[in-house]
Amino acid sequence: MKTRVTELLGIRYPIIQGGMQWIGRAELVAAVSNAGGLGVLTALTQPTPEALADEIERCRRMTDRPFGVNLTVLPTTTPPPYDKYLDVVIDCGVKVLETAGSNPKEFIQKARAAGVKVVHKCTSVRHALSAERNGVDAISIDGFECAGHPGEDDVGGLVLFAAAARQLSVPVIASGGIADGRGMAAALALGAEGVNMGTRFCATRKAPIHPNIKQALLDAGERDTNLIFRTMRNTGRVLKNAISDEVVATERRPGGCEFKDIHHLVAGARGRATLESGDVDGGLVWASQVVGLIDDVPSCAELIERMVAECREVFRDGALAFS
Amino acid sequence: MKTRVTELLGIRYPIIQGGMQWIGRAELVAAVSNAGGLGVLTALTQPTPEALADEIERCRRMTDRPFGVNLTVLPTTTPPPYDKYLDVVIDCGVKVLETAGSNPKEFIQKARAAGVKVVHKCTSVRHALSAERNGVDAISIDGFECAGHPGEDDVGGLVLFAAAARQLSVPVIASGGIADGRGMAAALALGAEGVNMGTRFCATRKAPIHPNIKQALLDAGERDTNLIFRTMRNTGRVLKNAISDEVVATERRPGGCEFKDIHHLVAGARGRATLESGDVDGGLVWASQVVGLIDDVPSCAELIERMVAECREVFRDGALAFS
Repeated sequence: MKTRVTELLGIRYPIIQGGMQWIGRAELVAAVSNAGGLGVLTALTQPTPEALADEIERCRRMTDRPFGVNLTVLPTTTPPPYDKYLDVVIDCGVKVLETAGSNPKEFIQKARAAGVKVVHKCTSVRHALSAERNGVDAISIDGFECAGHPGEDDVGGLVLFAAAARQLSVPVIASGGIADGRGMAAALALGAEGVNMGTRFCATRKAPIHPNIKQALLDAGERDTNLIFRTMRNTGRVLKNAISDEVVATERRPGGCEFKDIHHLVAGARGRATLESGDVDGGLVWASQVVGLIDDVPSCAELIERMVAECREVFRDGALAFS
Repeated sequence: MKTRVTELLGIRYPIIQGGMQWIGRAELVAAVSNAGGLGVLTALTQPTPEALADEIERCRRMTDRPFGVNLTVLPTTTPPPYDKYLDVVIDCGVKVLETAGSNPKEFIQKARAAGVKVVHKCTSVRHALSAERNGVDAISIDGFECAGHPGEDDVGGLVLFAAAARQLSVPVIASGGIADGRGMAAALALGAEGVNMGTRFCATRKAPIHPNIKQALLDAGERDTNLIFRTMRNTGRVLKNAISDEVVATERRPGGCEFKDIHHLVAGARGRATLESGDVDGGLVWASQVVGLIDDVPSCAELIERMVAECREVFRDGALAFS
């Protein structure tokens, strides 16, 4: 399957595994890349730049196909050494950098000057246009359905992907709400040239997540996510569970909500502990509305081959039926 | 273009003009039906059942193609004579009834017994399954992007259409977020067998709406809608303007909001006055996020022919590119 995205990234199918904290490790990444997609390591899953270099090396021993590294740049009081992580990406000869968070012009320029392709992930057309002006090679755009941070605009993928494809010159990768070949065909029909999936890849065999969490993703329907941190304008979409329900209830209570009101609920509740322990109600788990369309835990190769076959079938059948 | 929806409704293209209060009048409806889609009159736009019978007759003088009537059943203290409106639909030999609001089993059965096809409009898979059990012929399902009432689940069309198509036996009509042939192809790819459009048909020549309002739809981007009445659990998506911004601000203020707090803003601000006066900031105007994809005011025939051609092209190109 050839699109500008497959050409740009040197991959067989326009399917990208989105950068996910604690989950984007070598086993999953290599499985995706070996299956013809693009696996993406998450830089900040590694405690130090040196550990990232080791993880890249470990991934390379598992696949000779291209893979990427995600670097999410957020304003914090004690930022990680982003520069040094980027140096590792460049020095290790990684082919693709996925940037997210703020739109770091200097990182983009440095990476591109070193021959690294840059895909910037964002949640609105105006941010995508800004990243395009800063020289990125492609845009991965997250619709309202997505796991993690959908932004505050709440524009569904059906409209957002089409709007982005109309307005951008660089290729668009559709992200959020896609889990199968039908969703992939829909994204391509809207003008995207590739798809990015996070939640769907969490429910695959090599995802480093406790089986209980994978089962919870299978059990969930399309209504079983919550939007949290809305009052902080840092909205995140997570699996509906006891903790996220309580966060939502607190944020909605009359009188307003400050971070201190929910701090006890979320402190220590996020991150790797929950993914590793399998205590589904023990913490916050990013999840897209696409959980409603996930029914099994295949290998990445099975998933990708099935998606591509279904996507092709949709286009072939549509061309026949609607000629 | 043949799908179960075109067969069921006796139309050439699987494109339906959704029932819209004050807008679903004979001129627009006939234009859509003459162009090969299904135009839909709104019963309650007419002050009495007798006036609806006259409107049906007027529409029939403008088209010999099938058209439908929408009957939106809502619990109110002084309900309109729903039964009598339904009798008019049946007695006048209208071919298609679009029900919305609650899921009136007895109306569905009465209409079907009289040979009228029933399309029920709803916003969630569970309500669609309930309507299917009650015997409807097709489901029109509204995603989060839609104008008017998206419900309280907030599931994007990309996921909702696919989930509905997987779980229902009757054909699914995708509604909300569709304005062009790409969106139509995406909906069909997801498993829908037709598309329903409201906002897009508002920006056509025969829509009985002041030119200023049509211009406002063209000017708006995908971020230019507001969700109002969220605090009343009767959410509506409207065009962003001075009034809807103020409603949203009031609903979000700490301390909570009751209907009396926004009553002065919305009393008299809804409905036909605004559509007719063209005072864009004078009232509330239903609008889908798809306003971000609307750039012109074509005739219904131009719009539908263009959509169908683009949809066919998307499938044909996809079949070639991804074989």
